[in-house]
Amino acid sequence: MAPTRGPRVKKGLLERLDSGEVVVGDGSFLLTLEKRGYVKAGLWTPEAVAEHPHAFRQLHMEFLRAGSDVMQTFTFSASDDNMESQYFEHAVEAVWAVEVLKESGKPVAATMCIGPEGDIHGVTPGECAVKLVKAGASVVGVNCQFGPWTSLKTMSLMKEALQAAGLRAHLMVQSLGFHMPDCGKGGFLDLPEYPFALEPRVATRWDIQKYAREAYNLGVRYIGGCCGFEPYHIRAIAEELAPERGFLPPASEKHGSWGSGLNTHTKPWIRARARREYWENLRPASGRPLCPSLSKPDA
Amino acid sequence: MAPTRGPRVKKGLLERLDSGEVVVGDGSFLLTLEKRGYVKAGLWTPEAVAEHPHAFRQLHMEFLRAGSDVMQTFTFSASDDNMESQYFEHAVEAVWAVEVLKESGKPVAATMCIGPEGDIHGVTPGECAVKLVKAGASVVGVNCQFGPWTSLKTMSLMKEALQAAGLRAHLMVQSLGFHMPDCGKGGFLDLPEYPFALEPRVATRWDIQKYAREAYNLGVRYIGGCCGFEPYHIRAIAEELAPERGFLPPASEKHGSWGSGLNTHTKPWIRARARREYWENLRPASGRPLCPSLSKPDA
Amino acid sequence: MAPTRGPRVKKGLLERLDSGEVVVGDGSFLLTLEKRGYVKAGLWTPEAVAEHPHAFRQLHMEFLRAGSDVMQTFTFSASDDNMESQYFEHAVEAVWAVEVLKESGKPVAATMCIGPEGDIHGVTPGECAVKLVKAGASVVGVNCQFGPWTSLKTMSLMKEALQAAGLRAHLMVQSLGFHMPDCGKGGFLDLPEYPFALEPRVATRWDIQKYAREAYNLGVRYIGGCCGFEPYHIRAIAEELAPERGFLPPASEKHGSWGSGLNTHTKPWIRARARREYWENLRPASGRPLCPSLSKPDA
Amino acid sequence: MAPTRGPRVKKGLLERLDSGEVVVGDGSFLLTLEKRGYVKAGLWTPEAVAEHPHAFRQLHMEFLRAGSDVMQTFTFSASDDNMESQYFEHAVEAVWAVEVLKESGKPVAATMCIGPEGDIHGVTPGECAVKLVKAGASVVGVNCQFGPWTSLKTMSLMKEALQAAGLRAHLMVQSLGFHMPDCGKGGFLDLPEYPFALEPRVATRWDIQKYAREAYNLGVRYIGGCCGFEPYHIRAIAEELAPERGFLPPASEKHGSWGSGLNTHTKPWIRARARREYWENLRPASGRPLCPSLSKPDA
Repeated sequence: MAPTRGPRVKKGLLERLDSGEVVVGDGSFLLTLEKRGYVKAGLWTPEAVAEHPHAFRQLHMEFLRAGSDVMQTFTFSASDDNMESQYFEHAVEAVWAVEVLKESGKPVAATMCIGPEGDIHGVTPGECAVKLVKAGASVVGVNCQFGPWTSLKTMSLMKEALQAAGLRAHLMVQSLGFHMPDCGKGGFLDLPEYPFALEPRVATRWDIQKYAREAYNLGVRYIGGCCGFEPYHIRAIAEELAPERGFLPPASEKHGSWGSGLNTHTKPWIRARARREYWENLRPASGRPLCPSLSKPDA
Repeated sequence: MAPTRGPRVKKGLLERLDSGEVVVGDGSFLLTLEKRGYVKAGLWTPEAVAEHPHAFRQLHMEFLRAGSDVMQTFTFSASDDNMESQYFEHAVEAVWAVEVLKESGKPVAATMCIGPEGDIHGVTPGECAVKLVKAGASVVGVNCQFGPWTSLKTMSLMKEALQAAGLRAHLMVQSLGFHMPDCGKGGFLDLPEYPFALEPRVATRWDIQKYAREAYNLGVRYIGGCCGFEPYHIRAIAEELAPERGFLPPASEKHGSWGSGLNTHTKPWIRARARREYWENLRPASGRPLCPSLSKPDA
Repeated sequence: MAPTRGPRVKKGLLERLDSGEVVVGDGSFLLTLEKRGYVKAGLWTPEAVAEHPHAFRQLHMEFLRAGSDVMQTFTFSASDDNMESQYFEHAVEAVWAVEVLKESGKPVAATMCIGPEGDIHGVTPGECAVKLVKAGASVVGVNCQFGPWTSLKTMSLMKEALQAAGLRAHLMVQSLGFHMPDCGKGGFLDLPEYPFALEPRVATRWDIQKYAREAYNLGVRYIGGCCGFEPYHIRAIAEELAPERGFLPPASEKHGSWGSGLNTHTKPWIRARARREYWENLRPASGRPLCPSLSKPDA
Repeated sequence: MAPTRGPRVKKGLLERLDSGEVVVGDGSFLLTLEKRGYVKAGLWTPEAVAEHPHAFRQLHMEFLRAGSDVMQTFTFSASDDNMESQYFEHAVEAVWAVEVLKESGKPVAATMCIGPEGDIHGVTPGECAVKLVKAGASVVGVNCQFGPWTSLKTMSLMKEALQAAGLRAHLMVQSLGFHMPDCGKGGFLDLPEYPFALEPRVATRWDIQKYAREAYNLGVRYIGGCCGFEPYHIRAIAEELAPERGFLPPASEKHGSWGSGLNTHTKPWIRARARREYWENLRPASGRPLCPSLSKPDA
């Protein structure tokens, strides 16, 4: 297997993407720090950065160990080498943001919180992508609000529209770490489980390996996560794409590929789980027979 | 509500229990650190303590903030004021351990990894409890291997047997943080999802509040968790029992009781979730319609 | 409530629909007679008519008692006053059939076995409806292959297209009696449960009352069923639309509306079920915790 | 395969069982005739026999064609050659009934409506069986109220107790045709779906073949069904035990063993279903992702 390696010498995001690299994003900060006791749900303000910097740094370090190539901060962010705009639900606002950021002279990455049905005014994902690239974005995509398969569906609509319009841009996906096939147009906020009963929806590492592979096959080269993506989910992206990237993340020293770490277990039926086919085909039970498998969105 | 308070002046475990206090245990170390990238599944050896002490300390701090009164180390442990024995599946071995520890002259707490069907030789939970107390244990109970409701069922069998035998001991429960009604006698290791696809089974904070209340009503006074118990689950115990204990844990500064932090949300249907009745009655969906709700154990 | 009444003096189908009547169709013959032991699955040939005419007549009589206004025979059928074409999956073939039947000089009703995605050449439901009406059909709609909600979705697409094209026709729906939200384009044949494990999908009478009401609200006036529709499902249509039709079917002498027949039960918790709100809101369990709630179609 | 054969020359029930024959019972009358429009739920009175004798005769004929060897009438019944008592929930009443019937001088078969937890006074299934046999019953067992696997569990407790007491009797099982693992002590009446939303729980023919085989292996020789058992379920018993009985029932002329009738289907993925392994391993979906898989009994 590929050798384990830490984060690389700093290069700009666009430079990396232009040279064909796969960039692994990071994961969930607010929801994860809420579960660790440092952020309050509802407001979701990131005061933890100031109040409990060790807790914030620790999570950052975990994402780095897991293979993340980037260090996003909580919100609208500006690093040395690129500007990013996120969490837009309206195409028109996202376009304004890109135009403003563009004036900085740095490359702009823009993601929207939309699903396959588009923004709340009915602008389709394809139209959004075209508008953002025309406004100057070098990287476009989606983050948050929808689950892995829905987010990839949106990405494929963006890709098709850009191709049809003869435009080029890098693609970026940062899905929720939750299974959400029942989301309506408004995303996961509208599901009755948000935000305090999402547990049964958390993706397994194997789900995320599949997500990473499908994103890669679709041509997406910035692959990360949003709410619900824990460090081991990011590691799953980095492990799935290790053949393409040429190295494993540091945290893989504590992870046997496809469950291989179970091959020394004393019980034979657990040793039998130390193989890819087992985990790829398993359909995990919820342990909740009184609960449904899908919900109706509240709106 | 009760004032927030940090960990108290050090008292011995037995002293606290004898004085009628509710002691809140801690939660999951190995499974949680595995997801953070510091422990390898399969071997589950706790080398993280030495290799990545900051990660280990951070998790400890989170459990303390969440309300934990104790600081267990990873395994068989001896602190200044009590000796503990855990993870026994055989009554006879557990009894030996208690007898040895007893010689130290300190109070002994002994928990077994058994469910309502008893140990692998068919010794019932009631018989186990009686043997352990007769061997000298001051605190008896269960940890790991079974879900919340199953663990409480086992505790109630232990309690009845102790009463019937005219014996007295403090009761202690440290359930898994997973829903596991389909466990056979061998516990969660035998379920096909162990250890890499347990996500859909993770308990919500509301499940754990119910668990804490039922444990308390049963007379259990040492209430904690084992694998799968994250810091917010421990906080749920501490919040549920705040009326009895007289204070909230530090991490409750970041948690509105029963979802009350949602009452300022801009969307009215999300504000409508800011109440106890909502979360108590919600039956959360798995988002996985292709998956079953229960599994057959492998053994 | 409306008085119970038997089938009415014979009028032509078109005459009834033209005068604004709601026509209740019949239900499942082949699948129902298979379960009674008279038809062989796979071939599904209706030799029962000749071999076991009493069994066939009995089922007919049950549908009549349940409120059915029509007497379809098993296949492509020609009665005295109208011609019907059914089970077409291709728009082009259906159009030919309508053109041929039209030459008879009698009104033609044409239904297709398609879902919202249209026929296998990608002709949309709307286009199909327009083509059929232009070819001369007086009644258009769908039968078989898809569940109640999917069939109604297809009907609404047909209706919109007819309106957009300025065409008028009566609408007709004959859904499966099974819940099939996981059907692909090919309908229920492609689901792994077809045809011998469809039991968990069978609609309740309350599901069918809802289906009848939604069909009526959509403007559909010929409302019946196809495979899986048992006599009590047809009765549910007739009962739901009794206010509009002015009478109840004969079999309602053996059915208390919305469970009212339970109001004399000796157990109070069963008496509590004798009301509409109870049955309308119940989400019935499958009793099968090891099974998923949806399947992946085979094709 | 075994030749198809009709009902045999009349022999007494006990005579058959004594000679080692497997007797196939019949199935559901009241619930089935309710769905056909002839019986009213709640009262469940069998006036259909008088009011609609053709409908009643037809169902009888279907059970005969399906392989049933017996012709029970609706209730407490007395035929020429044996007396039967059924639907007792109290051991003490059942014993009185057996004693009274015994005075007729004919062999008595007695079944109780109990599950593994015994009657409502806590008399275990084993004690019930022993009391009934001591009172003079030649055949003992269970009917109604519980699903297939629960009924077999009860039968195995009866068998063990009879063996332990050194008593001999024939065993008889007539389970519900519904999956009911969530039944409490009170049986299916207490489940919220009773009686108008039981559809998702209906057993497949393959479930019933398994039930018949397990009943046979347990030593039960009178194997039939109760509420929910349709003619094709009875045929499934007769087909599963055809090797032991030496013949197939008449209705098997319309049924290919283990789906073999699909082997000429035009679609290859449906032809692939024409084999035993396929149907034995299928876990059929409910098509109801908003519903749970188990319910809580009302009492």
